[in-house]
Amino acid sequence: MTDVLTATYELYLAEGESPEGKARGIALEQTVEMPADCLPGDIAERMVGRIRTLEPRADHWVLEIDYPLAAIGGELTQCLNLLFGNISLQSGIRLVQVAWPPSLLRRWGGPGLGVSGLRARLDVGARPLLCAALKPMGLSAPALAARCAAFARGGVDLIKDDHGLADQPDAPFAERLNACQDAVRQANRRSGGRSLYLPNVTAAPQALGERLAAARDAGCEMVLISPWLTGLETLRWARDEYGLALMAHPAMTGGLFLPRHGISPALLLGELFRIAGADAVIYPNVGGRFRFSADTCQAINHALRRPLEGLASAWPTPGGGVDVKRAGHWKQAYGPDTILLIGGSLYAQGDIEAASRALMQAIRD
Amino acid sequence: MTDVLTATYELYLAEGESPEGKARGIALEQTVEMPADCLPGDIAERMVGRIRTLEPRADHWVLEIDYPLAAIGGELTQCLNLLFGNISLQSGIRLVQVAWPPSLLRRWGGPGLGVSGLRARLDVGARPLLCAALKPMGLSAPALAARCAAFARGGVDLIKDDHGLADQPDAPFAERLNACQDAVRQANRRSGGRSLYLPNVTAAPQALGERLAAARDAGCEMVLISPWLTGLETLRWARDEYGLALMAHPAMTGGLFLPRHGISPALLLGELFRIAGADAVIYPNVGGRFRFSADTCQAINHALRRPLEGLASAWPTPGGGVDVKRAGHWKQAYGPDTILLIGGSLYAQGDIEAASRALMQAIRD
Repeated sequence: MTDVLTATYELYLAEGESPEGKARGIALEQTVEMPADCLPGDIAERMVGRIRTLEPRADHWVLEIDYPLAAIGGELTQCLNLLFGNISLQSGIRLVQVAWPPSLLRRWGGPGLGVSGLRARLDVGARPLLCAALKPMGLSAPALAARCAAFARGGVDLIKDDHGLADQPDAPFAERLNACQDAVRQANRRSGGRSLYLPNVTAAPQALGERLAAARDAGCEMVLISPWLTGLETLRWARDEYGLALMAHPAMTGGLFLPRHGISPALLLGELFRIAGADAVIYPNVGGRFRFSADTCQAINHALRRPLEGLASAWPTPGGGVDVKRAGHWKQAYGPDTILLIGGSLYAQGDIEAASRALMQAIRD
Repeated sequence: MTDVLTATYELYLAEGESPEGKARGIALEQTVEMPADCLPGDIAERMVGRIRTLEPRADHWVLEIDYPLAAIGGELTQCLNLLFGNISLQSGIRLVQVAWPPSLLRRWGGPGLGVSGLRARLDVGARPLLCAALKPMGLSAPALAARCAAFARGGVDLIKDDHGLADQPDAPFAERLNACQDAVRQANRRSGGRSLYLPNVTAAPQALGERLAAARDAGCEMVLISPWLTGLETLRWARDEYGLALMAHPAMTGGLFLPRHGISPALLLGELFRIAGADAVIYPNVGGRFRFSADTCQAINHALRRPLEGLASAWPTPGGGVDVKRAGHWKQAYGPDTILLIGGSLYAQGDIEAASRALMQAIRD
C-alpha cells in the first residue's frame, strides 16, 4: 500500500483500559482529535487512522494503525506530530515501527552523503572512521584549535565540537570556527590527510542559519547539530540550503526512551534522523555512562544502514567505550560502516597526537 | 548570586549508584563532558557545575547545582542543553526547578503581550478567555472558515487551528489562513467583536518563516506553534522577527513527564515556554484524556503567572473538561487570567454559534 503510513505501537494498559478503546483513542487523537460521532460527512472514513491489527503479547498489546497520507501532507514535522505528538502526553504507548510510503521517503530524501559519499570524500576504504570530540568548554578558541591540529596530525578522520560548545565567551562560535577549521586545514596540508572539522551549529533559528552559512563559507563540509533542540527538520534545511553533511547528536531525546512509553531508539535515532537528512547519528554505546542495551545499539545500526527506498545509508556513531584495547572489538561487533566516537579517553593519555595515531593504527589493523 | 544558574534535580538511584557519584557525574556531564582529572588549567574551577546541596528525601535525593553562566553564553538553546541535554539519556534524573539569573531572563524576554497585553488587545475585562479549536482535519478551507465565522459570531475570544492542521491537501495552509482570517474579520465587523484567528504555523524552518510572514501579512495577531517539534527558540524568533503573539502547544513534550525522570511540567511548559516567548501555553487539564494531576495543573498556572524579573505573565490554557456546566468551576479554580480551551464539546452540540454563545455567557456570569 502506498496511500497509507502504517505505524506500530506497543500498548501497556492501565487498570480500566481496554485494548480496543485505547487503540481507537489513538486513531482519533492523532488525526481528527474529536469523537467519531461528531465528524461531518465522510471524514471518519477518509481521515481517521484505521486499526489494522491489535494483538496480545505477554505484558502488552501490539497495535498497527494505517494513517491516511492526507493527514500528513508532505511535511516531516506534521508526520512526527501525527505519529506521537499528543499521545506523548498519554501513558503506556510506545511507537516502535513505521512502514514508510515511498513517496514520502523520496520527498524527504535522507542523507546527502551517507556512508559511501562520506567515505569517498575522505578517501577512506572499508574501515570504521574515528571521530574525536573537541573539548572541554572553557578553553579559548586557539587552545581548542591546537587540539584540533593534534587530532588531525594523529590522523583522526572527523573532529567534532563537543555538543555543549555553542557561543560561550571563552570560545565564541565564529572565532572557534575559523581557528579550528584553519588548524585542521593546515595540518591536512602538511600531512596529506583529509581530516574534517565539524563545528556545532545548534542554536536558535536565525543563529543556526548564520552558523550554517559561516561553516560552509569557512570550508567546512560537515557540521554537528542536535535536532531535538533545534527541530528535526533543521537537518533537511541544513542539507538543502547549505549543502552540508550532518552529524546528529541525541541531546534531549532521552525522555522518549524509558520503558513502556515513548519512541524506540532505533526508530527515532535510526530511521527518523536518517530520513530527515543525518549522514551520521551519535548514540550512547552500550556499557558507557548511559543506558542503551547491546540489542538497542545493533537495532539503531540496522535502522541507519538498511535498504530504504534508495535513501543513502547513514553512519552509526556509537560514543563511549572505545580505546586502543577495545577498538578491535567494536570494529568486529559493528562492522566497517561505523564511526567510532571517542571522548575523554584520548585526552586522558596526555599526548593527543600520539594517542590518536595509536588508536587510528588499531582501527586500521 | 547573578553569575550562576542554579538547577534543582531529583535523583532516583539505581542499585550501585551513590548520590554523590551521580551528582558529580551530572555536574561534569552537562558542562565539560570529561573526567575532572583530565581538565587543563583552571577549567575544573571555572566551568564544572558546583554541587550546592545534596539532601535525602523519602525515596530520592534532591541536588542543587550551580552552573557558571560561562557554560551557557546567552543562548536559550544551549541553556536547555546544559540543563538536561545529555542526562536525558541517563536514568532517574528529574529537573524540577531553576533559579534564573536576571541577566538571562532580560535577554530572552518572555511573552511579547502576556496576560495584560492580550487582555487590552481584546478589550476584555477580568474574566477567563475562551479559545475554540478549529477542526477536524479533512474539512476544506471554506468549511473550516465557516466554523470560524460561527465561533466568532458566538463571541469566542480566540479560534485556533487544531495543532494537526498543517499543510494537508484538504485545507492547504495559505488557503486556510486567508479563508479563516477573512471569515473572522467579517464576523467581527458585523458584531463589533474582537475575536482572533490563530493559524498553526508549526513546520520546518523555512516553511515556518514563510507561514509566520503570511500570518502577519494576513492581519493575524497571534499564532499557534508546537515548540517541541520546531525547537523552543522558534518562539523568540516568531516574537521578535514577526511581532506575533504566541500560543504554544505541548505536542511531543510528554516523554519528559513520566515519573522519576525528565523535566517537571511546570518548569518546561510553565517557565521555559514562557521565558522563550509564549503568551499562552496549552496543557492537558486534569480529568481529561491525559495524565496531569490537579496539583500539576496549578503548578503550571503558577509558573506562567508568577513574578519573574519583570517578564510579562502568560496565560495558562488548560484543554479539556470545559463545558457550560463546568465553566463556573474552572473559572473559580483557575481564576480570571486563564484561557479555557474547548475542543470537541462545542461541536457535539451541533449549532456551534449557539453553543459558543451559551458557553461565553457561562464564562461571563
